Amino acid sequence: MNRLDWNSLDGAGQRAALARPAQSRADSLRSGVEQIIARVRADGDDALRELSARFDRCTLEAIEVTEEEFRAAEATLAPALKAAIDEAAARIEAFHRAAAPMPVTLDTATGVRVERVLRPVGRVGLYVPAGSAPLPSTALMLGVPARIAGCREVVLCSPARADGGCDEAVLYAARSNGVHKVFKLGGAQAIAAMAYGTASVPKCDKLFGPGNAWVTEAKLQVSADPDGAAIDMPAGPSEVLVIADAAANPAFVAADLLSQAEHGPDSQVILLSPSATMLDAVEAEVLRQCAALPRAEIAEQALAQSRLIAVASLAQAVEVSNRYAPEHLILQVNEARELLDGIESAGSVFLGAWTPESVGDYCSGSNHVLPTYGYARSYSGVSVASYQKQITVQEVSPDGLRAIGPCTATLAAAEQLEAHRRAVTLRLAALEDAA
Amino acid sequence: MNRLDWNSLDGAGQRAALARPAQSRADSLRSGVEQIIARVRADGDDALRELSARFDRCTLEAIEVTEEEFRAAEATLAPALKAAIDEAAARIEAFHRAAAPMPVTLDTATGVRVERVLRPVGRVGLYVPAGSAPLPSTALMLGVPARIAGCREVVLCSPARADGGCDEAVLYAARSNGVHKVFKLGGAQAIAAMAYGTASVPKCDKLFGPGNAWVTEAKLQVSADPDGAAIDMPAGPSEVLVIADAAANPAFVAADLLSQAEHGPDSQVILLSPSATMLDAVEAEVLRQCAALPRAEIAEQALAQSRLIAVASLAQAVEVSNRYAPEHLILQVNEARELLDGIESAGSVFLGAWTPESVGDYCSGSNHVLPTYGYARSYSGVSVASYQKQITVQEVSPDGLRAIGPCTATLAAAEQLEAHRRAVTLRLAALEDAA
Repeated sequence: MNRLDWNSLDGAGQRAALARPAQSRADSLRSGVEQIIARVRADGDDALRELSARFDRCTLEAIEVTEEEFRAAEATLAPALKAAIDEAAARIEAFHRAAAPMPVTLDTATGVRVERVLRPVGRVGLYVPAGSAPLPSTALMLGVPARIAGCREVVLCSPARADGGCDEAVLYAARSNGVHKVFKLGGAQAIAAMAYGTASVPKCDKLFGPGNAWVTEAKLQVSADPDGAAIDMPAGPSEVLVIADAAANPAFVAADLLSQAEHGPDSQVILLSPSATMLDAVEAEVLRQCAALPRAEIAEQALAQSRLIAVASLAQAVEVSNRYAPEHLILQVNEARELLDGIESAGSVFLGAWTPESVGDYCSGSNHVLPTYGYARSYSGVSVASYQKQITVQEVSPDGLRAIGPCTATLAAAEQLEAHRRAVTLRLAALEDAA
Repeated sequence: MNRLDWNSLDGAGQRAALARPAQSRADSLRSGVEQIIARVRADGDDALRELSARFDRCTLEAIEVTEEEFRAAEATLAPALKAAIDEAAARIEAFHRAAAPMPVTLDTATGVRVERVLRPVGRVGLYVPAGSAPLPSTALMLGVPARIAGCREVVLCSPARADGGCDEAVLYAARSNGVHKVFKLGGAQAIAAMAYGTASVPKCDKLFGPGNAWVTEAKLQVSADPDGAAIDMPAGPSEVLVIADAAANPAFVAADLLSQAEHGPDSQVILLSPSATMLDAVEAEVLRQCAALPRAEIAEQALAQSRLIAVASLAQAVEVSNRYAPEHLILQVNEARELLDGIESAGSVFLGAWTPESVGDYCSGSNHVLPTYGYARSYSGVSVASYQKQITVQEVSPDGLRAIGPCTATLAAAEQLEAHRRAVTLRLAALEDAA
C-alpha cells in the first residue's frame, strides 16, 4: 500500500495521489465495440449466438430465459437466500418509494397553472454483470426502481454460465421484482441488442447497470447515437474513500478497504487520516485480514495501487475527498454526521463505525449503482427518477393569458421572433373582440 | 405543407411521416469539432480568439464581459424589456422552486437511517446561442435553476456580435440571475473552453443549453470524455406537434405552427387532426399568416417539410404523438386535460386554446430547454434537479446492524464476496464481545 503525506506533496503530487487509472478508451477498445455493435445490428440473434460462443464460451439454444427456467430457479434456490433477496427488495423498495419524485402543480399567476407530471420510460434494459460471480443484488438495484416507476417493459441481460444456464438467484431477484424478460447475454453484444433490438431482444429506450470496459464503451457508443438508447451514467472501476480519525477501529477500516479491493484488480482504495498511528494500524490489519480471503490475489493487486494518505485534519480530509469525488465514502470518525454538510461530491456516504459499505451494497435500502471515476461531481446514483421522464404541462385561461401575454410578447419581440409574439397577440385580440 | 392520411399509410409510410431530418453526425462535422476541441485544449485563449475571428467574424479583446459592460447593459436596456425579464424570472423561479427535489430521510429498519441529500453541481457552464437573434430567455431558463440549486460558480458563454459586444438583454438576464461570469464565445469552441478550461474560462463540471449542430456535437464529444464535462441532454432542431379537434380555432393553430417554423429551416412542424376541414382551414391560415412574417422565408422552408396528418380519432392522435415524442405538444381540443393521462412522451405540454407555446418559451414558469429529436422518450427538460447531485447517506446503529447484518452477509456469500461478508460479521462479533 502506498503511504503519502498530503501536505508534503506539490500540486502534481496531489493530482497523482488522487489519479484514477487511465480509462482505456483506447482505439482498439473503441473499434472492437463498434464492430460488435455493427454485427448485432446486421445479424441480430445470429450475431448474439456467435459472439456469446466466442466471448462467454457458451452455446445458446434459446437466448431468452424460459418460464420453465424461472420456475426451476425459484424451486432450486436455498430458502435463506430467497428470504434475504425478499428482505433486501423490501427495504430497497421502501427507500426508493420515499425518494421518488412527486407530481407538482403551481399557479404561477391567476389563470396560469403549471404542472410537472411523471411518466415511466417505456422500455428499459438492465445489465447485470457476472464477471467473477453472479450478482443478484444488482438485479434488485436495477429492477426495483423500474417496477416502482411502472416501466411498460423491463428487460434484463446477464451472461450465461458456461453450461448455458443463468444464475438462479439472479433469475429469482429479477422475476420477483417485475422484470418481464431475461436474456442470457453479456458484454457489448448485450448492450447492442438492447439498444437496437433483435428478433428476440426488444429495443429499449434506456439502459442501466454497471459493467466492464467493453460494456461501458458500448453504453457510451449507443448513447451518442440518436437511434440507440439513453444510459444511466458512464462508469469506471468501483472505488472507496475512507476517512478515519484516531478513535476508529482499524479492523473495521481494514475490512471496508478490503471489501472494495476484492472487487477487482482495478478497484480504487483510499484512506485519509490525520493520525499516523491509525494509518499504521490499518495497514497492518489489511495485510492480516487479506491473507485469509479467498480473493486475496485480486485484493492484493488492488491494494498495490491503494493510497493511505496522512492529512492535517478532518476538515482537510473532507476537502481532499470532495476533490476525488468517491463512489463510496465511509466516515469512520466520532460524530460522523458533523462532516456530512461539508461533503460536496460522493455517490453514497456511510456514517460511523457500524455502517460498513456492504450494507449499502445489499440491503440498507439505498442503491448501489453509483457514479464512479469522478462522475460523482456531476452525476447521481440510480433512483426511481432515472426511470422516469418529468413532463411539464401548462394550462392558461383567458384571464391567465391577459396576465402573462404582454410579458411574453415583449420578450418575443426582443428576440425578433414575431410569430411567437403574434401567437399571443392574435389570441389577446380575439379575447377583446369577444368582450 | 404535406398532407397525409395516417390510416392509409403502411408501416414504412408511417415511419417516414414521423421521421426527423437525419442528424448530420457526419464524419466531417465530427472531425471538424474534434479539431476545434484539440485546438482549444492546446492553445487556450489564443485558440478562442482565433476561432472567434474565423467563425463569429469578431475580434475579441477581452474574452470575459467586464463589470463596466454589465453596468452599461443594465443602463441601456429598455425599461419595459427589463421589467419583462424580471417578471419572467420570477415565475420561472416560483415553478422551479416548487418542483425542486427535497431531502429525504427514512428509517428502513430500526437503527437503519437512509437519507438522500442534495448538493449543487459545483461549476456549471451555460450556453446561450445567438444564431439569428440574442436569446435572453435562454439565459433565464439556464440561469434561474442554477441559482436555485446554489451552484458555486455559474459561467455563461454566448457569441459576441460582430462589433465585439454582447447583447444587453442577455447580460442583464444573466447578471440579475446569479451568473458569475459571461464570456463572448460561441460554437464548439465555447463548449470546449467550458469543458476543459483555459486561462480565462473556468473548467466546468456540467454544461447546459441548446445550440446548432456544432455545439451539439461538441457537447456529445466532451461528455464522452472522463476529462470533459457532463451535459444536460443531447439536442436536435426544435419541434412542435399540435393535436387539434374540429372545434379548434384554425388561426390559433396556424399561429402556433408558425411560431415553431420561424425558428429555422430545420424546425419540425406536425399537425394531427381527425377533421379534414380543420386541416384545410389551418393550411389556409398558415399561408395567410406566414406572408406577413419578417421571417417568412425561414418559416416557408420549415413548412415545406411540415406534415398535416389526418387521423381517425383523438385517441389515435395521442398514439401517434407518443410515437413521435415531441419536444412541444399543443392540445387544441375541447377538454384537453382529458388527453393528458394518455401522453407518455413529450418535453412540455400546452393545454387548450389559450395556451400558446410562446408562454412556455418565455414566462409561464416552465423551462424551455427540452428534449428534442425523440429524446423525450427517455430524457426530461432542464430543472433544478439537473443542477444537483442526489447523494444517499446511511447511518446504522449497533441494533441496526444486528437487524440487517445477517441479510447482508447472506447476499455477500451468494455473490462470493467474502470481504463484504466479513465487514459485517467482524462488526457483529465485536458487538457480541462487548455484550
